[in-house]
Amino acid sequence: MHSSHISLPIFSPPKTLKSQFLSSLNPTPLPIQTRLLSTRPTLTIRSAVAIEKETPEDERPETFLRQSDDAAASLSSSSASSVRGRFEKMIREAQDSVCEAIEAVDGGKFEEDVWSRPGGGGGISRVLQEGNVWEKAGVNVSVVYGMMPPEAYRAAKGEGSAEGAKAGPVPFFAAGISSVLHPKNPFAPTLHFNYRYFETDAPKDAPGAPRQWWFGGGTDLTPAYIFEEDVKHFHTHRGERRGLGGIFFDDLNDYDQEMLLAFSTECTKSVIPAYIPIIERCKDMPFTERHKAWQQLRRGRYVEFNLVYDRGTTFGLKTGGRIESILVSLPLTARWEYDHEPEEESEEWKLLDACINPKEWV
Amino acid sequence: MHSSHISLPIFSPPKTLKSQFLSSLNPTPLPIQTRLLSTRPTLTIRSAVAIEKETPEDERPETFLRQSDDAAASLSSSSASSVRGRFEKMIREAQDSVCEAIEAVDGGKFEEDVWSRPGGGGGISRVLQEGNVWEKAGVNVSVVYGMMPPEAYRAAKGEGSAEGAKAGPVPFFAAGISSVLHPKNPFAPTLHFNYRYFETDAPKDAPGAPRQWWFGGGTDLTPAYIFEEDVKHFHTHRGERRGLGGIFFDDLNDYDQEMLLAFSTECTKSVIPAYIPIIERCKDMPFTERHKAWQQLRRGRYVEFNLVYDRGTTFGLKTGGRIESILVSLPLTARWEYDHEPEEESEEWKLLDACINPKEWV
Repeated sequence: MHSSHISLPIFSPPKTLKSQFLSSLNPTPLPIQTRLLSTRPTLTIRSAVAIEKETPEDERPETFLRQSDDAAASLSSSSASSVRGRFEKMIREAQDSVCEAIEAVDGGKFEEDVWSRPGGGGGISRVLQEGNVWEKAGVNVSVVYGMMPPEAYRAAKGEGSAEGAKAGPVPFFAAGISSVLHPKNPFAPTLHFNYRYFETDAPKDAPGAPRQWWFGGGTDLTPAYIFEEDVKHFHTHRGERRGLGGIFFDDLNDYDQEMLLAFSTECTKSVIPAYIPIIERCKDMPFTERHKAWQQLRRGRYVEFNLVYDRGTTFGLKTGGRIESILVSLPLTARWEYDHEPEEESEEWKLLDACINPKEWV
Repeated sequence: MHSSHISLPIFSPPKTLKSQFLSSLNPTPLPIQTRLLSTRPTLTIRSAVAIEKETPEDERPETFLRQSDDAAASLSSSSASSVRGRFEKMIREAQDSVCEAIEAVDGGKFEEDVWSRPGGGGGISRVLQEGNVWEKAGVNVSVVYGMMPPEAYRAAKGEGSAEGAKAGPVPFFAAGISSVLHPKNPFAPTLHFNYRYFETDAPKDAPGAPRQWWFGGGTDLTPAYIFEEDVKHFHTHRGERRGLGGIFFDDLNDYDQEMLLAFSTECTKSVIPAYIPIIERCKDMPFTERHKAWQQLRRGRYVEFNLVYDRGTTFGLKTGGRIESILVSLPLTARWEYDHEPEEESEEWKLLDACINPKEWV
């Protein structure tokens, strides 16, 4: 399964220690324009799950962790803060460097929304829309404190796992970076990447139960035209893969945390060197209306994958996550033609063929 | 809940009597161009459900009912054939008359695909794409013989219902007409309608269990700009309704079948007189780029509703229904802008306000 967002349900956080977002605190300079989130009309989300509404923030806090997490970390070994804290720091640095690299190529600027939740957690959403190179580029980080239904916990940890089998909702912590970059040029591929870290606490009614943690993530490329790329695919819809692959992992906890944190960091650092050269090569290629129309049809297919199958998207939408952050992954424009079929052996046909009949690219 | 398609799962039909589609039979003239469905590359649908693949037909059969149904009907009372047969006849006539009316206004022509399944059932999909008045108009009928998982049966009949509570999969019959009409002009509203009839048989392991039947359906209007219309809404997403309403009913079985068949027929006959005058009034209204952009954003929202929430769409996709028929409901083009908000008190804002804060229009 594929999960590109970290929007997860919050039922009623066991503690409601509000993170100290000292707006009087003078933060580091903001190179990216931060805008104040507008207030929306009051909405009644008909969801099975109670979730705290996000609150706009006008400045980036130093951390989205609860104070209790921070305190616990500073009381522990002097050298290392918690993995939670270090993962948050890592993904926020990754967000900065990816956005910087995108802006350098595009010439446009990201807009930023910062938000938090009263019981702890929050996020930073950055969007560059109608740029010179990208039609829509979104790079989000989020930190979530929530309660995971026991089914979700069992699903995440494997159906066979004994622990928690009879327990109630499991408190969890999740932090992640999620990004989808849709270029304008039909020969330039869409990139998606997402890296996340989960921790569960012992359920209230089983204080001695073991705590779990795991890493997950992936980077994948979705071209409308094939320029041979490394491929490892992960999902089927209409008998097709969404894209032509990349890497994907989940439930990684069988190495030590330091090693996996380093691996995740390495993965996020590889995004730009892996993607930008492709973009540089493709972004100014001449194209015709036919190429653009095909890109738009593939964008439509991307929307289908995202809204119907993407675990992060559907879970986020159904449990009341921040919708605009979740759906920033959708392209600016898309198209659906009834029963469209590319001419056999055409370039469009080759892409479809590769999505239906996976190849070993390496 | 809202269901706009009749694509339901077929596990393994209890009987596999193939409907007699005598292609040598000289059918009534085909005013609508019937095209042969192309053969697709072999797909492996990773679905929990085994479903028969549809087979293209080059002519419309007289009925999609199984022979056994036909025979049963002709053995019963001399005057009336089965409700199954009469419902199929009604929706096929409705499909003809709606398509005829659309063509008369648009000037374009529908294309038609006819398909069947080996174990019985099938459908006729008609699409008019890039017409003069409509961007995309789809009108489908389908007849499905399937096995309903007991959960689905209980969900359909109410959780409290005792019968079938311990039974296995329940054989069912469903027939329906489903249509979404997306006009080009941003002032002309999208129309959706869907009318369906269900019957269940006794489960194999409970031959004496009571058989059920029910009618469902609805007609609703989704404008991008408000010209006051009757409203009754049925669904929430982002705290909004998809459209501004119409009528909706489901699980109707507390009147006699004759009366409900007549009611469904009446509803399908009301579609054209209710919709065409609105289209005639709006189709040539002058509009600006701003109006078109807003229409495209609302089309994006329509896609979200359809792919994330629409029970018929998600069920159909996940169980292996005919995808191109299911997704003909999607617009030709759509657009997503991050956190788009119309200016307060603008015409666009008024539409959104009406979707978020439902009004009594009548």
